[in-house]
Amino acid sequence: MQTDSPLTLTETKHWVDEALRDYSAQRIRDAKRIGPSYVRLHETIDTLVQIGGKRLRPYIVLSTFHAYAPNEPLDNVLPAATAQELLHLAMLVHDDIIDRDLVRYGIPNVAGSYEAYYQRFINDSGEQKHLALSAALLAGDALLADAHQIIRRTQAPKDRVERAEEMLSHSIFDVIGGELLDTEVAVLPSGSVDPLSIAEHKTSSYSFVGPLSTGAVLAGAPEEDVALLGALGKHLGISYQLVDDLLGMFGDEHTTGKSTSTDIVEGKRTFLVQEFERIATEAQKSDFFSVFHRSDAGEDEIIHAKALLSASGAVEAVNERIRLHRAQCLSIIDKLQIDDTSKELLASLIAICLDREK
Amino acid sequence: MQTDSPLTLTETKHWVDEALRDYSAQRIRDAKRIGPSYVRLHETIDTLVQIGGKRLRPYIVLSTFHAYAPNEPLDNVLPAATAQELLHLAMLVHDDIIDRDLVRYGIPNVAGSYEAYYQRFINDSGEQKHLALSAALLAGDALLADAHQIIRRTQAPKDRVERAEEMLSHSIFDVIGGELLDTEVAVLPSGSVDPLSIAEHKTSSYSFVGPLSTGAVLAGAPEEDVALLGALGKHLGISYQLVDDLLGMFGDEHTTGKSTSTDIVEGKRTFLVQEFERIATEAQKSDFFSVFHRSDAGEDEIIHAKALLSASGAVEAVNERIRLHRAQCLSIIDKLQIDDTSKELLASLIAICLDREK
Repeated sequence: MQTDSPLTLTETKHWVDEALRDYSAQRIRDAKRIGPSYVRLHETIDTLVQIGGKRLRPYIVLSTFHAYAPNEPLDNVLPAATAQELLHLAMLVHDDIIDRDLVRYGIPNVAGSYEAYYQRFINDSGEQKHLALSAALLAGDALLADAHQIIRRTQAPKDRVERAEEMLSHSIFDVIGGELLDTEVAVLPSGSVDPLSIAEHKTSSYSFVGPLSTGAVLAGAPEEDVALLGALGKHLGISYQLVDDLLGMFGDEHTTGKSTSTDIVEGKRTFLVQEFERIATEAQKSDFFSVFHRSDAGEDEIIHAKALLSASGAVEAVNERIRLHRAQCLSIIDKLQIDDTSKELLASLIAICLDREK
Repeated sequence: MQTDSPLTLTETKHWVDEALRDYSAQRIRDAKRIGPSYVRLHETIDTLVQIGGKRLRPYIVLSTFHAYAPNEPLDNVLPAATAQELLHLAMLVHDDIIDRDLVRYGIPNVAGSYEAYYQRFINDSGEQKHLALSAALLAGDALLADAHQIIRRTQAPKDRVERAEEMLSHSIFDVIGGELLDTEVAVLPSGSVDPLSIAEHKTSSYSFVGPLSTGAVLAGAPEEDVALLGALGKHLGISYQLVDDLLGMFGDEHTTGKSTSTDIVEGKRTFLVQEFERIATEAQKSDFFSVFHRSDAGEDEIIHAKALLSASGAVEAVNERIRLHRAQCLSIIDKLQIDDTSKELLASLIAICLDREK
């Protein structure tokens, strides 16, 4: 593994992909001891692992580590980086169960794949679905447990590895809380769950605060910087989620892989909707909420509802908020005790996260 | 914490209960940072933790540790013991989701408690149930992750604690496989899943092999003994499961807390049923399978089916198998490099596990 800067997302993805392939190949071999059923589960996990996303979380660990220990081999901390991705995959698998989704990255997810498999043996479609969800539940458990196992292979002073493990536990505790808030937002009375709090706990914590702090701690960064990177992660995560909300509604469906009608039809109470409620006129609100969270809303109605979000100034308010958090991120990076090249590396990370294609 | 032998299950339960109460009280405090929704989840976990069972798995860790390090304070390894119980609770919570059970230890489990709670906010009962299962899914995740966090607090030489962590990972990998086999046994063609293999992976591994090996490794037991205890755990777990199967069908419903009709009605393919298929006459089989796995089977038919299991000699065959595994357990204990008092302690553990009330 080369460590000459600049460290790019593309080359990191290559290393992490390889580490993940090794991991799941090992797990498929381990599963043989228990039987062909278990081999199938790990093969299904392997499919998910291999198709996976940008490996953003491992990239954050590696680039933060590199910023503080530019001469240390990145291989040593690759397990800590990989662990963040396994945690991410575990949460995706369990999140899909909660959201009743059967597709991920454009192919059947664990539950989707098992639903098709169980059709061979049972006719009752409710039973097929329940058993498929059970298999997905177990797959997520395996990934969650393996994040803990893999992080222990990190090559660094023991006290730093222990802190990285504690950070992993902390991330998991937070993301479970964030998932719960996100699940309950549709149920509990409007206003009782703050969308920015969901973003903080469901997104910032395990996707940004955890990886940034882990990379820094493993490199022996000064404590002030570890704290600053925690704050950076919070701002970055919240703005990442706000960008996500905008892309979910105004992005290119082919790029995001998600219908831009979903959030309106399902009545997702994002920060965007909250801002709309705060600043729109009564007429705009009345119009918008006659469409929002209505499963039979027509395409024209949805387009009109989105236009209202724009016309009210809510979209601009969200963009302003993103700019604010981004400025905070850059100002924090400026305070870090690292050289300019490393600062540029972290600044480019902010760009990767926030300048995603519409 | 006193360490004078004999170490009893009752006093161990007291210590472990206290450690678990401290754990969940801390988690309730931690959850406040994220919000009242998350506090409720951890309060629900706390109810489960506090009502919990016999604390058999922590007892096994502590008594094995005590057998090899009789002068070491047990407090030091209480976290490793507690971790086994958290893993057990995590698996119970997820197992209940898979089994669609809403009651555990005679009170609503996590999903049951959330179903009642969500009734306050939504009318659709399918939606209430799905959200309640989602909350239970997250509660199990939290317990699974916290098993890893707690075990790291064990006070022992670092290499031993690391091995205990590896053993925890190994237990989890196995129990997930065992759960999957147990889920699929009702679906896949008869004979494709071996009930003793389910017992080995779903029961032996995390309930016996893991706790026995963990206690031994933390005490610095000789490697030969660690291997022997692994074999002991396997025999003990399989026989424990066979006792469970008999109790499930012929035990006292008030003691087991479970209807003795369930296994017949649901068509559970236990080792007992497999033995019956192997040795019963064609007439007995035809009679039995006209009742087995029939949800409308009457009480008389079920009593008759159970009588056939006895008359065929299958019950005796299972009892013989239990005696065989028990003899193996005692013969292994005899080979261990520990004093006679410690051997008696481990022999009494076998009795606790296998001489359960009918």
